[in-house]
Amino acid sequence: MLGITILGNNSALPAHDRHPTAQLLTTPEHLLLFDCGEGTQMQLARYKIRRSKINYIFISHLHGDHYFGLPGLLNSMGLQGRTQDLHLFIPEKLKTILELQFEVANAVLPFKIHYHFLLEEGVILEEKKFTVSCFKTQHRIECWGFLFKEKKHPRKILPDECIKHEIPSSFYERLHWGEDYSNKDGEIIKNDWVTKANTAPKSYAYSADTIYDENLADNVTNVSLLFHETTYLKDQEERAAARFHSTTIQAAMIARKANVNRLIIGHFSSKYEELDEFEKEAKEVFENCELAIEGVTYLL
Amino acid sequence: MLGITILGNNSALPAHDRHPTAQLLTTPEHLLLFDCGEGTQMQLARYKIRRSKINYIFISHLHGDHYFGLPGLLNSMGLQGRTQDLHLFIPEKLKTILELQFEVANAVLPFKIHYHFLLEEGVILEEKKFTVSCFKTQHRIECWGFLFKEKKHPRKILPDECIKHEIPSSFYERLHWGEDYSNKDGEIIKNDWVTKANTAPKSYAYSADTIYDENLADNVTNVSLLFHETTYLKDQEERAAARFHSTTIQAAMIARKANVNRLIIGHFSSKYEELDEFEKEAKEVFENCELAIEGVTYLL
Repeated sequence: MLGITILGNNSALPAHDRHPTAQLLTTPEHLLLFDCGEGTQMQLARYKIRRSKINYIFISHLHGDHYFGLPGLLNSMGLQGRTQDLHLFIPEKLKTILELQFEVANAVLPFKIHYHFLLEEGVILEEKKFTVSCFKTQHRIECWGFLFKEKKHPRKILPDECIKHEIPSSFYERLHWGEDYSNKDGEIIKNDWVTKANTAPKSYAYSADTIYDENLADNVTNVSLLFHETTYLKDQEERAAARFHSTTIQAAMIARKANVNRLIIGHFSSKYEELDEFEKEAKEVFENCELAIEGVTYLL
Repeated sequence: MLGITILGNNSALPAHDRHPTAQLLTTPEHLLLFDCGEGTQMQLARYKIRRSKINYIFISHLHGDHYFGLPGLLNSMGLQGRTQDLHLFIPEKLKTILELQFEVANAVLPFKIHYHFLLEEGVILEEKKFTVSCFKTQHRIECWGFLFKEKKHPRKILPDECIKHEIPSSFYERLHWGEDYSNKDGEIIKNDWVTKANTAPKSYAYSADTIYDENLADNVTNVSLLFHETTYLKDQEERAAARFHSTTIQAAMIARKANVNRLIIGHFSSKYEELDEFEKEAKEVFENCELAIEGVTYLL
């Protein structure tokens, strides 16, 4: 089961008990944190998520509402005695800031940080069951979106059929990946006689902060779940553009163009206390859309 | 009315819905913030305190739990359109960190920051009705406590007595400050015939993070209210010393030695979920003692 838990759904100015951006992707083996606004470690505690399980952290850009919670989170991991390596995928200059903060505190963390700098688009993390790649978004400063993609699932073995065709179990691993079997008489046993298709791999795109940009759709085509920012309602299109942010309609247009399965929207401006209108507007263009609500987990 | 509002009473690792250190001192004209741990801006919102009213911020030292909330607070002040100058009293290296954070965000704040570096003990702020001075505490890294002192209150005029002695109202200002009046016949009208003493000036000492240090008492003698850290209960004296922190008993001993009027204790270790024992222990040594509880305002 893969899910994305929203820890912060507000834009830069925290308000209405909404927090700056942070999202946690849960896989059976790993927790991946996308952005880490101020208070993320408290939000993790609030939703009873163990900080120690996070091994990968991705920071989209260096506006404070996307990373001011990172030094505190790292400190707390250290205070809790973490020894496991941690991987940070960040804009390069953030390393300078973090190291300066460690230095003035005379702090040495008890775990190793691996810094991976966001320099060009492409795969930045390859795990056994998934990859994460980054792509550029159009914002006031350099900004990166992230695309999580499960690898193809192995085909499911049909045990009765395999026995009937006398396929040795040592060949099952190759059956998982679609190979045909050739038996001792030279007869070909077609893979799809003895296996069946598994579920399709899931994917999640976190498109960070961005102005409306049609090209973004190319980076998130067909994903299971897309997060697209909607800092403003549709009547604020000019303001959104001036600040390199997007509206409800614009987010929904990207989702439609990219043919995603489902859209969640967030990064709401603090000027909005009520959020109902956001969902309503986005649904005018893309029906399978929900608000990104803090504490809620959206399955991929 | 002068009061100190606790915004964070926990030590470095946030837990049990307790937050890293931040305290707000309210005077009729000013709000002064002492330390600014992560989430301080959210705590200000929670207790409906207006960020815009804060003109003076004091940072005791560069452990993250005492300043990680500062960049976010400054950003938010900017987003809210603050134009009024802000004064920061900070360890010098914090300026480098802040400026780097502004630089990578390509951010220009719409208000001016005046940086005042903590370099030596003494008065660092003189306002019309109060002064703030800083003093060193003994911690793992350079650390400063702060002493807020109201200036002497003017003596109260007794109008009937002034009229009886034919003192012109133009002389009242001098009566406020204790001068005798000499009338046209050369007769001396003693100040205390025509005025009465006002309330004593109030004072507050925030002693930041510190190991048990008897000398600290000299810096906080006779204050109306003393905050002293109590990271640990009394049975953890060794651990406290090893980490340059204090226990309940030690805080209370300082309060007694310094002859303060009232003591509040905080900076509780996250290992303690319940705090009752802290108050009980400290009261063994110094009766007029209370826990520093978040959201509560303690009058000076």
